[in-house]
Amino acid sequence: MNAKDDGPAEEAGVRSVLRALDLLALFTEGSSRWNVRELAEASGLAKTTTLRLVSTLERRGLLWAAGAGEYSAGPGLLRWSRLARSAWQLSEPARQIIRDLAQHCGETVNVYVRSDIHRVCVAQEEGPQALRHVVRVGDELPLWSGAAGKVLLADADDALLERISATAEVAVADLRAQVAHAAEQGYAVTHGERELGASGLSAPVLDSANRVVAALGLGGPTPRFTDEKVVEFAAAVRRAADEVSRIGLVPGSSQ
Amino acid sequence: MNAKDDGPAEEAGVRSVLRALDLLALFTEGSSRWNVRELAEASGLAKTTTLRLVSTLERRGLLWAAGAGEYSAGPGLLRWSRLARSAWQLSEPARQIIRDLAQHCGETVNVYVRSDIHRVCVAQEEGPQALRHVVRVGDELPLWSGAAGKVLLADADDALLERISATAEVAVADLRAQVAHAAEQGYAVTHGERELGASGLSAPVLDSANRVVAALGLGGPTPRFTDEKVVEFAAAVRRAADEVSRIGLVPGSSQ
Repeated sequence: MNAKDDGPAEEAGVRSVLRALDLLALFTEGSSRWNVRELAEASGLAKTTTLRLVSTLERRGLLWAAGAGEYSAGPGLLRWSRLARSAWQLSEPARQIIRDLAQHCGETVNVYVRSDIHRVCVAQEEGPQALRHVVRVGDELPLWSGAAGKVLLADADDALLERISATAEVAVADLRAQVAHAAEQGYAVTHGERELGASGLSAPVLDSANRVVAALGLGGPTPRFTDEKVVEFAAAVRRAADEVSRIGLVPGSSQ
Repeated sequence: MNAKDDGPAEEAGVRSVLRALDLLALFTEGSSRWNVRELAEASGLAKTTTLRLVSTLERRGLLWAAGAGEYSAGPGLLRWSRLARSAWQLSEPARQIIRDLAQHCGETVNVYVRSDIHRVCVAQEEGPQALRHVVRVGDELPLWSGAAGKVLLADADDALLERISATAEVAVADLRAQVAHAAEQGYAVTHGERELGASGLSAPVLDSANRVVAALGLGGPTPRFTDEKVVEFAAAVRRAADEVSRIGLVPGSSQ
């Protein structure tokens, strides 16, 4: 996209799309009903702007007038639900690899991809132990924290690192050093970075051009990620990530 | 929304949101990968506009650069997937009612809600017979055809009927007569209206203010919808729809 082509009307259009999507993002399973006043307050938008965007989203079935002036997730999201699940369904061999990894290491396996300045969990295989690292498919987490972030930022340019740094208490230079270290050793490991007591270990899934397309790794309680275990986990995770790189993450992927 | 408040910038904003959502709607399980040129052709938008909207959708994780200049459904849709499924999950008593209805009548039960000029299937219980009416949760169908449409349009004003009529080969007066007839007899039945050989029978699910919130009904092959069967089906469907109206369609619904 060439910014020079964009007049004020085009910029306003993009801004409206982003605002509409951000309003939709306020709806979660925990906060599933909002009225226009609440949406305006939470988004910082003017009430008339909020109302206009809500009406537009309702028109396409993405929001639903749930009664008493409240809105909830619309039926139009159900179609995308099916689409998203089919697009991000792991191929059966890839699914088997992460199943085996979870079993072998006794920890939950997560697969993350980068989405702007976030990482999104696109697949998961729960570990066998009761004390687990609970992240769900579809969860959006920050890129600056956790092992998966270091792996996913391998090809990041300065502009991206600066945008990420601006949202977090981490300097661009530190982030770059962490990313370089992960690239050098072939995996990243973090302890209590995103959440006290939680550890993660991730390795890159590459496409055929050796670009990082996903981070595949383990998450679990720090007491189970001892130095000795980390050596064992790193070998197993790297092997699994390499296998998934070879066969492709999702069916029909160009990796 | 007061149209008088809307200047050209606001109109452009709404138009951009609608265009972005329409681009996203081009992605289906059958057509899961598109490049910008194809999207521009299918949407009728200029290539620069298409590119700008695609970039915006990609920025929020709703589209995904899948390689070779192609885009697919983004990981951001996975979060909405979970949200939509939780918002439209039938309450267990409602689920039991449609399960019993499918068993009793031997036909597939579908629940539709209105979304603008469409109806969306939000719940389903498959019938026991091999020859089935196949519609899937999330499918968007026209409102002008099928029994569910007549039921869902009970409270429709002229403007809505005219918009629907404009997309179909049905006159507003005919549509209004069909809707009135359904309201009068408490259900609608159609044969081969949307698809040759397929019949449907639907009754309204009402909220506490007696507004139609959903259409609950059966779909199956016309040879199984004889006059005699229709009488039996109508009684069973109306009873089930009344029960669901009383307990509410989804948990926490204001019906």
